[in-house]
Amino acid sequence: MRKFFAFCSILSLTSVSQAQNRDSLVVKQLFDEVLTKGECYENLRVLCKTVGNRLSGSPEAAKAVKWGEATMRKAGFDSVYLQPVMVPHWVRGEKEQAQIITSAGKRINVHVLALGGSVATTAKGITAEIIEVSTLEEAKALKPEQVKGKIVFFNRPMNPKYFSTFQAYGDCVDQRARGAVSAAPNGAVAVLVRSMTLASDHSPHTGSTYYDPEKPKIPAAGIATLDADLLSKLLKEDPKVKVFLKMNCSMKDSVLSYNVIGELKGSQFPNEILTVGGHLDSWDIGEGAHDDGAGCAQSLEAVRLIKALGLRPKRTIRVVLFMNEENGNRGGETYALMARVNKENIIFAVESDAGGNTPRYLGLEMKTPAIQEKAKMWVNYFIPYGVSEIRAGGGGVDIGPLKQNGTVLASYLPDSQRYFDYHHSENDVFENIHKRELELGAGHLAAILWLVSEYGI
Amino acid sequence: MRKFFAFCSILSLTSVSQAQNRDSLVVKQLFDEVLTKGECYENLRVLCKTVGNRLSGSPEAAKAVKWGEATMRKAGFDSVYLQPVMVPHWVRGEKEQAQIITSAGKRINVHVLALGGSVATTAKGITAEIIEVSTLEEAKALKPEQVKGKIVFFNRPMNPKYFSTFQAYGDCVDQRARGAVSAAPNGAVAVLVRSMTLASDHSPHTGSTYYDPEKPKIPAAGIATLDADLLSKLLKEDPKVKVFLKMNCSMKDSVLSYNVIGELKGSQFPNEILTVGGHLDSWDIGEGAHDDGAGCAQSLEAVRLIKALGLRPKRTIRVVLFMNEENGNRGGETYALMARVNKENIIFAVESDAGGNTPRYLGLEMKTPAIQEKAKMWVNYFIPYGVSEIRAGGGGVDIGPLKQNGTVLASYLPDSQRYFDYHHSENDVFENIHKRELELGAGHLAAILWLVSEYGI
Repeated sequence: MRKFFAFCSILSLTSVSQAQNRDSLVVKQLFDEVLTKGECYENLRVLCKTVGNRLSGSPEAAKAVKWGEATMRKAGFDSVYLQPVMVPHWVRGEKEQAQIITSAGKRINVHVLALGGSVATTAKGITAEIIEVSTLEEAKALKPEQVKGKIVFFNRPMNPKYFSTFQAYGDCVDQRARGAVSAAPNGAVAVLVRSMTLASDHSPHTGSTYYDPEKPKIPAAGIATLDADLLSKLLKEDPKVKVFLKMNCSMKDSVLSYNVIGELKGSQFPNEILTVGGHLDSWDIGEGAHDDGAGCAQSLEAVRLIKALGLRPKRTIRVVLFMNEENGNRGGETYALMARVNKENIIFAVESDAGGNTPRYLGLEMKTPAIQEKAKMWVNYFIPYGVSEIRAGGGGVDIGPLKQNGTVLASYLPDSQRYFDYHHSENDVFENIHKRELELGAGHLAAILWLVSEYGI
Repeated sequence: MRKFFAFCSILSLTSVSQAQNRDSLVVKQLFDEVLTKGECYENLRVLCKTVGNRLSGSPEAAKAVKWGEATMRKAGFDSVYLQPVMVPHWVRGEKEQAQIITSAGKRINVHVLALGGSVATTAKGITAEIIEVSTLEEAKALKPEQVKGKIVFFNRPMNPKYFSTFQAYGDCVDQRARGAVSAAPNGAVAVLVRSMTLASDHSPHTGSTYYDPEKPKIPAAGIATLDADLLSKLLKEDPKVKVFLKMNCSMKDSVLSYNVIGELKGSQFPNEILTVGGHLDSWDIGEGAHDDGAGCAQSLEAVRLIKALGLRPKRTIRVVLFMNEENGNRGGETYALMARVNKENIIFAVESDAGGNTPRYLGLEMKTPAIQEKAKMWVNYFIPYGVSEIRAGGGGVDIGPLKQNGTVLASYLPDSQRYFDYHHSENDVFENIHKRELELGAGHLAAILWLVSEYGI
């Protein structure tokens, strides 16, 4: 009997190791395919160069939806459909103007961008003295007489000591998101926020800012890091220095838009659904190449790779190009809500929204010991292609609402050193995408999808 | 007694863990310093923009030696000196000319660079038919009547399937190094070699080619990948297509040059020497930013970081900016030879000559179980800063000759995806260096030097 069990356990070890060999070979073939016949770089070029940037509600966003749908149909998904989403429609208007005015009357042009969602200045612009702060708390603690009629200048830089620039961003972005609501109650007339980047340059970065419906809404602009440094320096020498700021952005009526969805039907468990995606919308400058054309192109490519190898996944794989991640997340919320309404069983979702740079990690919710075991085995397939670790914790803005559905969330995490050089700025263009680095990301998405489609999670 | 041993072993565990905590803190402080007050990016800018490219024997190489010496003196090394090295002096001469000539007489300009060390064509240039091959073996197997009077065109691309582009390069570079000697015996009049890059562009890459003193020397040029693709396509349609090639490069008399050396004296074991370095020479195009200005700037910075923290290494740390890696390795050979002559005990040497991109691995010769143990412990200090693994095997062209001295060799290995886009081409300029990525490499060099200086190897 003991011998029999020993025999069985050898058999089972053998079959585990055969499966591992097969899985490792499939992963290699996925990478071979993407690195030799990858289509994601060309797909992304088309999105960036024929659609360009595509803020929710804009005609370009509508064009991007058409691009997504057409690309999926061409790729031979089993089904392709649009999921309606109402999205906000904010418009930047004329190019912003900003100048530093010294007390001697010298005017120096500086580079600013209205923050997304900001209200306009008056038509002639505003001119006001500046008060520099580092934190929201500092802004809130100021007395009304210190702030009234002034522009509050949030100038805390991203902390360069973090290896992960996302960590530095997370530590800093409250100024952009909530600077205006923190400064307004004390009578500030506007806020200027140091751009969220570790680069020293003249390129301002935008991104969402939020208002409290109960509080006054004041204009909010991002200022380029070198211009922020200059303003800070001048303020020390000349505390009466003023800034002129003119912006005529505005919020329009909401617009009907769509998540673009394509499915590859599972052969054995079609009702167990895997979701992979990025967001189709972008800010209204640059080309949304890294943020997040890359994630869209990689998600589409991941499914193409699986099909190109002639594989049929056991579980359904669904690519979702989410709408409106940047300023509302209506796409992500709608997708999760409709899945609950339709009682869909989305067992797994992985997002690529951290840029198209060289691979670094996968994030995965380690909800159960079984998932930990899988991660421990699977990481060995990824290591040869640059994902060195499967880290606990996964998700992202678009797939975040699926948490409520019980979905296991994952994220693809490329190297972050360069990401905030581009993020939400004019620099986020196709030319800053590296073909092989983009392709490697698609390979990793395909690999994790294939493994989860085979074994569940 | 047993209790006493248990007590001792707890004590010793405590002191090991205290040492680990301290080492981990020092490593963190080294990275904090480089990421907040790093000087290597600015040092590299000066080298690239005021010296520029610096092929061995050129006036620019002499200027680079002066730059290296001055930078070391400014950095406060305990001693700075020049080690004489005789180097070859090859000169490119006038800009190369090359055209494809179809049998209908149409002339198409293509982008070529003479390979380093190549002889010139005749003064008027040569025009000859083309025979395309993929390997040296194929070239050698051709019959003289197939080759005589023709240009042999080596067109095997780098294999995109390798994750490490260095592996793809290693698989391919024989065409550049030995194409000319393989084709000459059968009567070829020149060779054209597909550029060693995975990028599709019009930028040709140079690099050393070698001759056999016993065999005829024929001109050798690198051709840009897109031009190579065009030539290959045209050849299929029009086998009588010719190429016109004109180059007037030449080898001059050898020149006296130098390795530039700076030392930080060890406090406890000054005769145990650690070497860190990159090569100061570069090819004569671009600015030698990644290859290998980055390695020089990082090596200098590594010592600056240790000094900036107020640390005194127990063992001597020696920065060597090697001369002539690209076309002779006289610097590396001289350094190892003189160390043997002077009976120096160089216990460890680490090289950075794989570009200034984001960190990936360290390579280390795992000569003894003790080294393996150290690697296993130390990698934990590196992982938070992007070196995910200490791989068995270390070295590089410059420090390679130290193998004979019994030195333990190591290498810093950044991400390789972008490296061959720049390597040996006009693209290898300062603008393609990322500040933080460069700094992270300096941090890793400083960390490994500090650990070896504390514990030996």
